[in-house]
Amino acid sequence: MSEPHQQSATDIRLVEVGPRDGLQNESVKLEVDDKIRLIDLLSECGLQNIESASFVSPKWVPQMANSSEVMTGITKKPGITYSVLTPNARGLEDALSANSDEVAVFAAVTETFSQRNTNCSMHESLQRIETVVKQALAAKTPVRGYLSCVLGCPYEGSVNPDVVLAMAEQLLGFGCYEISLGDTIGVGTPGKAASLINRLTAHVPVERLAVHFHDTYGQALANIHAVLPLGVTVIDTSIAGLGGCPYAKGASGNVATEDVQYMLDGMNLKTGLDMQALLKANRFITGKLGRAGSSRAAAALLTVDD
Amino acid sequence: MSEPHQQSATDIRLVEVGPRDGLQNESVKLEVDDKIRLIDLLSECGLQNIESASFVSPKWVPQMANSSEVMTGITKKPGITYSVLTPNARGLEDALSANSDEVAVFAAVTETFSQRNTNCSMHESLQRIETVVKQALAAKTPVRGYLSCVLGCPYEGSVNPDVVLAMAEQLLGFGCYEISLGDTIGVGTPGKAASLINRLTAHVPVERLAVHFHDTYGQALANIHAVLPLGVTVIDTSIAGLGGCPYAKGASGNVATEDVQYMLDGMNLKTGLDMQALLKANRFITGKLGRAGSSRAAAALLTVDD
Repeated sequence: MSEPHQQSATDIRLVEVGPRDGLQNESVKLEVDDKIRLIDLLSECGLQNIESASFVSPKWVPQMANSSEVMTGITKKPGITYSVLTPNARGLEDALSANSDEVAVFAAVTETFSQRNTNCSMHESLQRIETVVKQALAAKTPVRGYLSCVLGCPYEGSVNPDVVLAMAEQLLGFGCYEISLGDTIGVGTPGKAASLINRLTAHVPVERLAVHFHDTYGQALANIHAVLPLGVTVIDTSIAGLGGCPYAKGASGNVATEDVQYMLDGMNLKTGLDMQALLKANRFITGKLGRAGSSRAAAALLTVDD
Repeated sequence: MSEPHQQSATDIRLVEVGPRDGLQNESVKLEVDDKIRLIDLLSECGLQNIESASFVSPKWVPQMANSSEVMTGITKKPGITYSVLTPNARGLEDALSANSDEVAVFAAVTETFSQRNTNCSMHESLQRIETVVKQALAAKTPVRGYLSCVLGCPYEGSVNPDVVLAMAEQLLGFGCYEISLGDTIGVGTPGKAASLINRLTAHVPVERLAVHFHDTYGQALANIHAVLPLGVTVIDTSIAGLGGCPYAKGASGNVATEDVQYMLDGMNLKTGLDMQALLKANRFITGKLGRAGSSRAAAALLTVDD
């Protein structure tokens, strides 16, 4: 298979989700200063997007309790978009007060996951999202949409790609500029990942789609490799593979930024990222969490360096 | 990309290398009975090939000291080929005495690696191999050839694909029935892996080639995904990802059988393997080694099962 090749300054844009999606699923609750330090280190890596916090109720997600302090404490670097997750109007208000560049909304593609994760039906979830998106856009704040469980649901098993398509079209219709397709439990394999993208791009421009793979079963890089030839250019990744899988304790979560960077660099696909800067951020956060990260590239590179 | 599809009973043949290539690189030295038990458990997994031991000097590789007892102690199952590594005529003699079904020879594709790993030049290595292959074939024992460092050398860096081709042709010319292309230090990425296969298959039938990827930088499954459309149907894997990387201590080694099986099964490619039987072998050997294996699929499946 030939490598995709593009003419832009960067071929692939990595959206760093470690400080939010990653830390949210870590058992250790970090100090505000450590979160700020992590984001500031990530700002030195050449990233264009850093998902930095979540304005959810601390009752549900204690790891994200001090998001306002984080967002006002970081040193924003020009050219980087610092986004936050906002599940509802209250979260959006807090996000805007905290000077967030962009917000993200999320919905599940199965009824059971929607009920268990957001305590409402898919329809109610969409209504809530529509309100948030309208208010965000009125405040001139771009909105990114996440869909969860696009390649499998922990409760319902396989997922209908037509439902994923319908949900993606709804979120784009509300005004989301991009839809991140989340394989939340990491069960996807390359053929299924490619089929889903093909199903969606029959109706949605591929430029509006991002992929968000979890490495729970080790499949994330193979899945990314499968969707690159289809024109996907936006990939969510997490420094050190931060985050686990709440449905398989002890298993890996988000695909590691370092592993994706290693692969894309080897394929001569430009991301603008600096591996040494990523390793510095890796060392900092794994030290704070007191555990090795799940990035294999980082494990190998840090060992060789030592 | 469409999935490759074939008509045979199995689409892809996995060559299990855990008991040899895996254990050889583990710091724990197992008892003979535990090695036998591991191989017997692997014999229940639906595999067609199990590389079971190595007849090298115990001075160099103490982990393989009791290979004769292992080979005579296992319960051979019809339909499975139990192979052993034989670096020289002495090793071959021992292998044949121990009733091995098949032997394997190995050579590096850079001078520095050849000198450091086998203490001779590439030319001398080929001469030694030619003798072993002739004697093995005279004893009606098939010979598999391994090439090390095909996508990168820890001493010389990048490797010339033409050298890999020349070495592969030599080994095939001696009478090896198959060449396993080893990315010994795991530095390969999908584009380079595919390029190497394309370079070789311009001169060598793809049916004569196997791939042997290490997951040191997390790239193994992506690399496998990249070479499947090129017609590669033989993949070396290691139960629980046994084996590390001697050039990056603490890093991952061989790609895990379970992770490859998970991907191929998801792609509807038949291997004949039974995941539950693999997980049983995984639990046994990780228990004996006292460490979690590096298979992500096994980690997730065993957690969900518990």
